Amino acid sequence: MRSIKIGVLGLGNVGAGVLRILREHAQTLEQRVSARIEVKRVLVRDLSSRREIETPEGLLTTDASAVLQDPEIAVIVELIGGTTAAKEMVEQALSAGKHVVTANKALLAEHGEELFQRAQEVGCELLFEGAVAGGIPVLRAIRHGLASDRVQRICGIVNGTSNYVLDKMTREGLGYAEAVSKAQAAGYAEADPSLDVGGVDAAHKLALLALLSFGKRVALDSIFVEGIESVRDYDLAVAKDLGYVVRSLAIASREAEDALRLRVHPVLLPRDHVLAGVHGAYNAVLVESEALGRSMYYGQGAGMMPTGVAVTSDIMDVARTILAHRAGETIKEDDASQVSPLASVVGSPMDSLEHANYVCVHVAHVSGVLGRVATILGAHGVSIAKMRQDHPEGASHARLVIVTEVVSEAAMAAAIAEIERGDDCVEPTVRIRFMESED
Amino acid sequence: MRSIKIGVLGLGNVGAGVLRILREHAQTLEQRVSARIEVKRVLVRDLSSRREIETPEGLLTTDASAVLQDPEIAVIVELIGGTTAAKEMVEQALSAGKHVVTANKALLAEHGEELFQRAQEVGCELLFEGAVAGGIPVLRAIRHGLASDRVQRICGIVNGTSNYVLDKMTREGLGYAEAVSKAQAAGYAEADPSLDVGGVDAAHKLALLALLSFGKRVALDSIFVEGIESVRDYDLAVAKDLGYVVRSLAIASREAEDALRLRVHPVLLPRDHVLAGVHGAYNAVLVESEALGRSMYYGQGAGMMPTGVAVTSDIMDVARTILAHRAGETIKEDDASQVSPLASVVGSPMDSLEHANYVCVHVAHVSGVLGRVATILGAHGVSIAKMRQDHPEGASHARLVIVTEVVSEAAMAAAIAEIERGDDCVEPTVRIRFMESED
Repeated sequence: MRSIKIGVLGLGNVGAGVLRILREHAQTLEQRVSARIEVKRVLVRDLSSRREIETPEGLLTTDASAVLQDPEIAVIVELIGGTTAAKEMVEQALSAGKHVVTANKALLAEHGEELFQRAQEVGCELLFEGAVAGGIPVLRAIRHGLASDRVQRICGIVNGTSNYVLDKMTREGLGYAEAVSKAQAAGYAEADPSLDVGGVDAAHKLALLALLSFGKRVALDSIFVEGIESVRDYDLAVAKDLGYVVRSLAIASREAEDALRLRVHPVLLPRDHVLAGVHGAYNAVLVESEALGRSMYYGQGAGMMPTGVAVTSDIMDVARTILAHRAGETIKEDDASQVSPLASVVGSPMDSLEHANYVCVHVAHVSGVLGRVATILGAHGVSIAKMRQDHPEGASHARLVIVTEVVSEAAMAAAIAEIERGDDCVEPTVRIRFMESED
Repeated sequence: MRSIKIGVLGLGNVGAGVLRILREHAQTLEQRVSARIEVKRVLVRDLSSRREIETPEGLLTTDASAVLQDPEIAVIVELIGGTTAAKEMVEQALSAGKHVVTANKALLAEHGEELFQRAQEVGCELLFEGAVAGGIPVLRAIRHGLASDRVQRICGIVNGTSNYVLDKMTREGLGYAEAVSKAQAAGYAEADPSLDVGGVDAAHKLALLALLSFGKRVALDSIFVEGIESVRDYDLAVAKDLGYVVRSLAIASREAEDALRLRVHPVLLPRDHVLAGVHGAYNAVLVESEALGRSMYYGQGAGMMPTGVAVTSDIMDVARTILAHRAGETIKEDDASQVSPLASVVGSPMDSLEHANYVCVHVAHVSGVLGRVATILGAHGVSIAKMRQDHPEGASHARLVIVTEVVSEAAMAAAIAEIERGDDCVEPTVRIRFMESED
């Protein structure tokens, strides 16, 4: 039985989880991989810190080069987080011809372009299952399935905080601020939740999902991003009445051979849609591919053990790839598909899209305002499917809820802009897209 | 680049799908597996039949031994179906030291015990992703994840026909017979749908899922099976009113170190449960495991291309295992976990379980009958959470719908038996379990 030696950088929660899994499941892992996986060195900042896990004498070191330069170590598992030291170490590992497994989304978001390039030059793997929706084996499924299928579209709930907030607001009628506080108290949201609720975290994950699904790198600034901050409990209550729930979705679609469209925004889903059953901080990714059709993967998006399982799964995968090659063979000698330049992304990601829309206009309760709003919509070619008007309790202004027929993004945006130019708008207009009919 | 040669038995729909995938995705498969996968021979019954796919001169043969005895062929893909010739050929393949991939559920249901035993003796793999919920990479996820996790429970919608029928009845208000006809017309149900709607097909799949999840073989007759034949459109309409949908679930749980509980029966799920979003002939499997927690896999349960992808995925997996071993090494030399005797299954699978229940009693509309039913329930310790009574249109008898509090299986069964002994019961009583609260 051969042995594959790995070096681990960092022994926090996820690191301890990985070590525990490798220890407790050593025998089954060995059978599955057909080799022993041995943790040879673990880099820590301070040898005397208290750990989640006991380690044998001599395993820990504070000397990075003792891990990165050890010729016996074939795989480096980067779990220190951050983007400065982590980047340097991953580069060193790749330069030393070692494969790298990481769960560091920030690192890939910031330096992915360089690092994937470097991995390719040296013929090493750079795997990152733990960086996207930790507890869902979606990357593995896509990577594995891709070899015999062709992904057309992925559509996921990939930010647990946003989903938790929307779900609390929907199910318990909480206001946005209150739901965010609950998410913070439950440990799902950071003190500053703006990366999560603003959609930027989801955009980072979407770029990584697209890289695996389509083999194309996508620049972050070409992703359309709209957060959930403007969604009110009132909007969710009306949606519920109409038979819908609101979820923040990250959607990537193949528009032409080399053109992708990537976007993150809230969407109204029919209550019986398979993604509507994703509650709390859970994640899910719906994949549409040529051969399989629709498939979906659901699970916890984060956490010590789920992420530990994802990282371990990457380690197993690298180990099997190493074993599949004869000594001296370069692993990616002919991996032409890895030469993936930045994808051409559809000009403005929302151009040419058409949706039905939920629009909620807050107007001073004066006569003529409904006429003005309806006239503007008509002038822009926006047909009204449903309309209702009411008043927030105790307020003097009125809410107009309009469900539109399917219209172009351009028409909808122009109509809303014109409506909002009126003096009678007392609060920002909320607009949420319905899921396209083919979904 | 090494080459791994495979032999295919049968060139029907799935066989053609597999050949097409291997051809169209040759380059990515080669990169993923690190070897060329080459179809060397394909066994067919008649060389002159029209095929879904063109094949090169000399690929097809009507001589089984030309495939099974070819020393260069390392993997046999059995796609002829049936249980007689298929069994013989799989045995021959294993005896010749070849790995086997099959999508033949009937074969494994009938002869799995012997075949898995034989595979183990000769140190070969016997993989069957295509036999269970073809389009869902659930077996792969379980097999892969299992190596670093421990499954506690699986709960799935694994029979597309039953799900299609229940879904049609729920969404369109069709009666049972009408929904079955629609399923037949749509090609989802056989002329004789009894294996599907009776739950036996789901039990077969559950046994295979349990084998992979728990490493235990389970005798089919120790699985509790209840079909969907007695569920009426009325029951589904009442369930909907109450906020529930009915799905036929296959559930396997670990009750103790070596004891499993396996059952197939209809279940009332809250409308916003993640399995409630599984419509039509789709399948889904919800897995609960120690490290990952809850994860779910969803997709098409059958079909030429989904099953083709599953079979191809098994071929890739075997290829990687072959490559991971040095020449001459026996693949399963130390795979102790494969020695899995029949599991001890909890005595009667329903013993000791407790559920809330939906009960619909059809009684002659005579005074005193509600009193009789309520008295019997009380005498058996069955508390009533909700009750309603109405009349089928144009009928003279009454329907009593009772939602019970959580009670033992024994108490519920005894109460229903006693109720049904009364002369005033004019139709069989329908009883559907609610999902246990921990789900």
